[in-house]
Amino acid sequence: MVYLTRTEHFNAAHKLANPNWSDEKNLEIFGKCSNPNWHGHNYVLHVTIKGEADPETGFIFNAKTLSEIINKVVIDKVDHKNLNMDVDFMKGKFTSSENFAMGIWNELYPHIEKEGVRLHSVKLQETPNIYVEYFG
Amino acid sequence: MVYLTRTEHFNAAHKLANPNWSDEKNLEIFGKCSNPNWHGHNYVLHVTIKGEADPETGFIFNAKTLSEIINKVVIDKVDHKNLNMDVDFMKGKFTSSENFAMGIWNELYPHIEKEGVRLHSVKLQETPNIYVEYFG
Amino acid sequence: MVYLTRTEHFNAAHKLANPNWSDEKNLEIFGKCSNPNWHGHNYVLHVTIKGEADPETGFIFNAKTLSEIINKVVIDKVDHKNLNMDVDFMKGKFTSSENFAMGIWNELYPHIEKEGVRLHSVKLQETPNIYVEYFG
Amino acid sequence: MVYLTRTEHFNAAHKLANPNWSDEKNLEIFGKCSNPNWHGHNYVLHVTIKGEADPETGFIFNAKTLSEIINKVVIDKVDHKNLNMDVDFMKGKFTSSENFAMGIWNELYPHIEKEGVRLHSVKLQETPNIYVEYFG
Amino acid sequence: MVYLTRTEHFNAAHKLANPNWSDEKNLEIFGKCSNPNWHGHNYVLHVTIKGEADPETGFIFNAKTLSEIINKVVIDKVDHKNLNMDVDFMKGKFTSSENFAMGIWNELYPHIEKEGVRLHSVKLQETPNIYVEYFG
Amino acid sequence: MVYLTRTEHFNAAHKLANPNWSDEKNLEIFGKCSNPNWHGHNYVLHVTIKGEADPETGFIFNAKTLSEIINKVVIDKVDHKNLNMDVDFMKGKFTSSENFAMGIWNELYPHIEKEGVRLHSVKLQETPNIYVEYFG
Repeated sequence: MVYLTRTEHFNAAHKLANPNWSDEKNLEIFGKCSNPNWHGHNYVLHVTIKGEADPETGFIFNAKTLSEIINKVVIDKVDHKNLNMDVDFMKGKFTSSENFAMGIWNELYPHIEKEGVRLHSVKLQETPNIYVEYFG
Repeated sequence: MVYLTRTEHFNAAHKLANPNWSDEKNLEIFGKCSNPNWHGHNYVLHVTIKGEADPETGFIFNAKTLSEIINKVVIDKVDHKNLNMDVDFMKGKFTSSENFAMGIWNELYPHIEKEGVRLHSVKLQETPNIYVEYFG
Repeated sequence: MVYLTRTEHFNAAHKLANPNWSDEKNLEIFGKCSNPNWHGHNYVLHVTIKGEADPETGFIFNAKTLSEIINKVVIDKVDHKNLNMDVDFMKGKFTSSENFAMGIWNELYPHIEKEGVRLHSVKLQETPNIYVEYFG
Repeated sequence: MVYLTRTEHFNAAHKLANPNWSDEKNLEIFGKCSNPNWHGHNYVLHVTIKGEADPETGFIFNAKTLSEIINKVVIDKVDHKNLNMDVDFMKGKFTSSENFAMGIWNELYPHIEKEGVRLHSVKLQETPNIYVEYFG
Repeated sequence: MVYLTRTEHFNAAHKLANPNWSDEKNLEIFGKCSNPNWHGHNYVLHVTIKGEADPETGFIFNAKTLSEIINKVVIDKVDHKNLNMDVDFMKGKFTSSENFAMGIWNELYPHIEKEGVRLHSVKLQETPNIYVEYFG
Repeated sequence: MVYLTRTEHFNAAHKLANPNWSDEKNLEIFGKCSNPNWHGHNYVLHVTIKGEADPETGFIFNAKTLSEIINKVVIDKVDHKNLNMDVDFMKGKFTSSENFAMGIWNELYPHIEKEGVRLHSVKLQETPNIYVEYFG
């Protein structure tokens, strides 16, 4: 079993706020992330798959095809977008890194598994000092 | 003459659009950056000053004081903000990296020069692959 | 289960030497790290916790609170300090990265677990080319 | 149990092509990586070992000795080399990152295990956006 | 005057050898870089232009258009190529970083200047520890 | 004229304190950097030279020889050392980054100029967020 990771980059706006709470409580819990006028990030996404190397290519899966899947299924939906307003798979969810990584996993899973490889993890870096990982 | 650079980080949302143009023309010129619902970045700001080392400290200027000035004069106004809506010194301007770096220079200049050191440059990294520099 | 990592930075001096050994043997085993007059590093600390996303926030734990705990419990004790002389939880121990990471884990563990989340790992980068990980 | 990672860098040329296929099929499957005149990379190699800290040193293993082993057993054979033509342990194999990481593991394993520590993983970064990991 | 830099990445193989010298002299002067079977790098290219911000866009030049020019004029010719064998503008030249950066400048210059902006510098990073800069 | 930069890494301990001042005043001016028991850094040193490419090599100067000079003249004196106690060219000076960069310039200058190339700059990164540059 070998693990292959492909890294992709995108930019997006979002905010963190619970609609059932007052602005004061949102500010208390989410701090500056609750700014009603949004803020944003340069996200870094690491998608790791696992499998055995194909004897005809030496690949567990073609990294270029993996990149195309990630771009079609995730990046095209989130790059230069507002995560709260523009992204179908985040509708009605808090756009925390935790929820966003799980949302990305759910989008990628069927597209990657049907290629005959296993999705191992999604790692999402929101800032240089914060990242989350989800293993399904 | 020695040059000292202090690096600071902040996150913000923005969009690029000319209000005199149609959505189509904005999309043609600014591409995905014209998304009406905003996008955002983890900005990296490098502020460089120059001067001679003080014989009593070995510093041209105290890097901690420099950081405090940058935070008070710039970071507190832009971090987790919407550059188009929330930032006084960008009001009525396109929030291109070029204009933003010049705006940051203009904010910093009087506060740094009154300390007896010279402001040499402002370097603003918008994405891992794009940055601008302004020397006044 | 989602994993959240918060990264923090600090600087410290230390040396590696076994007090029961001669200077020659310390030099042989620890090399330049045994310099009696100390050397130092810009350490990078990654603290990873795990748990389930809270339906009211989307967080497994507030990253800002996590940062505050790490700073209060670890960074304030080690930043700009001498690991051999100034740090209570390293008293009488070799300040190898291995021991230091385990010491940091032991300091953090009760403070993080009492918040209702699980401490998953402590990763400590001593130089760009050496890091250790401890999982308890 | 603590995990210690040592990172090393090297440069090499290679190409990806199946000798049983036409140039057209190689181009279709391997893309630009099939260029008959080679291309190359600055590889980054992370070797992770695991064990318990020695009470006389605080080390699970001396990182300097680990570096010497990696250099003698791997780096000297691959640095500034052609992976397809010059590297004995890659003879007759596709020089995919997957195969190369497994080849490096096989070279390192006996030399590290005979030191009384366990080899945990080999992580090989081929480009800033692609890396593989092998755990034996 | 503002300076805008666009960063691009590519991979290539090359070797350094003077055809008028013996293998021994090439090894003496160029070291491992003279390996007849080639080696390679992940190059990082920074192209800096300068000008004044356009009042209708806030740009000195559209960074996306700049990227397209760099890709068409340089990256498409050098990515996954052998610098000594495949690259027209390096024919008959040593593929040192110095010569390569000057060659890239010469390729870019007419395409950038005809857009009405000034080419300021080409910075080419060959390894994490070596880079060259050329200002025309 | 082309510019070539070689990057080197080293670790050292130091402290910032004016011996004519009280501990209180040193703490006020130098903050945590005045800790009497030292702290330390992973320094990154960038040495930039300039000249014209030699028609027989394509080099302005052999980067390997440049590295050997930097190591012999600077790194061997400062790596894993105490800058205040162990380094001859810093004796009696405050070990600020400004003074240290100027000291490194003075050490390197005669050794590089006698090779027939020009020393352009010394850039010294003390932490990820602070660096100084000196141009002689």
